[in-house]
Amino acid sequence: MAHPKALLFDVFGTVVDWRSGISSAVSEIAKKIGHSVDPEAFADAWRGLYQPSMQEVRDEKRPFTILDVLHRESLHTVLSQFSFPELSTEDEQFLVTAWHRLNGWPDATDGLAALKQHYIIAPQSNGNIALIVNMAKHSQLGWDLVLGAEVVSHYKPCPEAYVIACEKLGLSPQECMMVAAHNDDLAAAKAQGLMTAFILRPHEHGKGQKTDLKAEGAWNYCADDFLDLARQLEADR
Amino acid sequence: MAHPKALLFDVFGTVVDWRSGISSAVSEIAKKIGHSVDPEAFADAWRGLYQPSMQEVRDEKRPFTILDVLHRESLHTVLSQFSFPELSTEDEQFLVTAWHRLNGWPDATDGLAALKQHYIIAPQSNGNIALIVNMAKHSQLGWDLVLGAEVVSHYKPCPEAYVIACEKLGLSPQECMMVAAHNDDLAAAKAQGLMTAFILRPHEHGKGQKTDLKAEGAWNYCADDFLDLARQLEADR
Repeated sequence: MAHPKALLFDVFGTVVDWRSGISSAVSEIAKKIGHSVDPEAFADAWRGLYQPSMQEVRDEKRPFTILDVLHRESLHTVLSQFSFPELSTEDEQFLVTAWHRLNGWPDATDGLAALKQHYIIAPQSNGNIALIVNMAKHSQLGWDLVLGAEVVSHYKPCPEAYVIACEKLGLSPQECMMVAAHNDDLAAAKAQGLMTAFILRPHEHGKGQKTDLKAEGAWNYCADDFLDLARQLEADR
Repeated sequence: MAHPKALLFDVFGTVVDWRSGISSAVSEIAKKIGHSVDPEAFADAWRGLYQPSMQEVRDEKRPFTILDVLHRESLHTVLSQFSFPELSTEDEQFLVTAWHRLNGWPDATDGLAALKQHYIIAPQSNGNIALIVNMAKHSQLGWDLVLGAEVVSHYKPCPEAYVIACEKLGLSPQECMMVAAHNDDLAAAKAQGLMTAFILRPHEHGKGQKTDLKAEGAWNYCADDFLDLARQLEADR
């Protein structure tokens, strides 16, 4: 089997645990202002607006807009759905930037460090540059560089999001491997010629998770976490 | 004095020693094909076409074009000037990618690691993404992310090259500090509101260097190398 030169990572769910991070931030603000809320339901609802918010950009109904802006817009919708009173500017900013302060899964820091020894490692996330950089500093994610939607001006799963990311590295799609906990992300990457690695993240959506509990395509690698992926790649070197 | 949140670095001359790296690669190819050449004169001539090659982009006479392409074009000119026979595709590629394999100054790896502990560190170079990433892997330069001309679509010293780089980090120019061995780069950054740090690199142009031997503006910091800059910043924290 051919060996990749660069690993491109999905981030939300694959590298970091967005659900517990966001629900924790929502809890904190709700407690501060004395509002009763199910924080995990709030996090799920906010994340539920993620794909629709990007669809307008994908459909070219609006110019490319970074995720921080889309997150803020969808936050307003969810705050209203959950009957929040109007938040202060500071509290709203705290919630929007909660996405910058997400914690990595337990293997994230060490797993990325192991993979970095032999490969270029870069997030190819829909998160904007500042979000991903601040998250990396917060959670010790040692990227070689930050790629992603803001660098390539396209949101996944548009083909351009994968193809241009490889071009930026001066590599062909065949020399790059997409690493994700989501089968649909890997299918879109594979369609553009990238290699693929599925990472099992069975608690991204909490204990009752029903999706992405197994590989649903002929991916090059299937791993329990990044350390497992590093071991499997090492065995094939 | 205000303290920066991010440090943006010039790369060629400030972080890496381009002249010895390029002349060494030129020597290797000349020896291989049996051509007599002064490799340092060749390196100086090639680098001499650097600013003119970007000027067409700055003047919007051609669309934004990455430095690897400009380097290849100017290489053809210099090969002709130095009466080289036609090179093989492989040898030409070796020379173009010599810019990807430049060595850092002796303090570069450790100095950047020290600065990274407290600041976001990113190259804001005219080098393209692949060039800077490959160089970072080659010379252990631990950037948090790769900014630069290809990310902001403008070549320094255009104002946009500095302003958009700060925007990508979600920071104001006042929260960012340009770090460079070149007074003109710092002047352009300061004009956009960035803080500035001058690094003395007295041998960038060889032993007879006559330019940038001292700070020529009211820069926030003047340092002998990156470790010295880290110490000075630490003293001001």
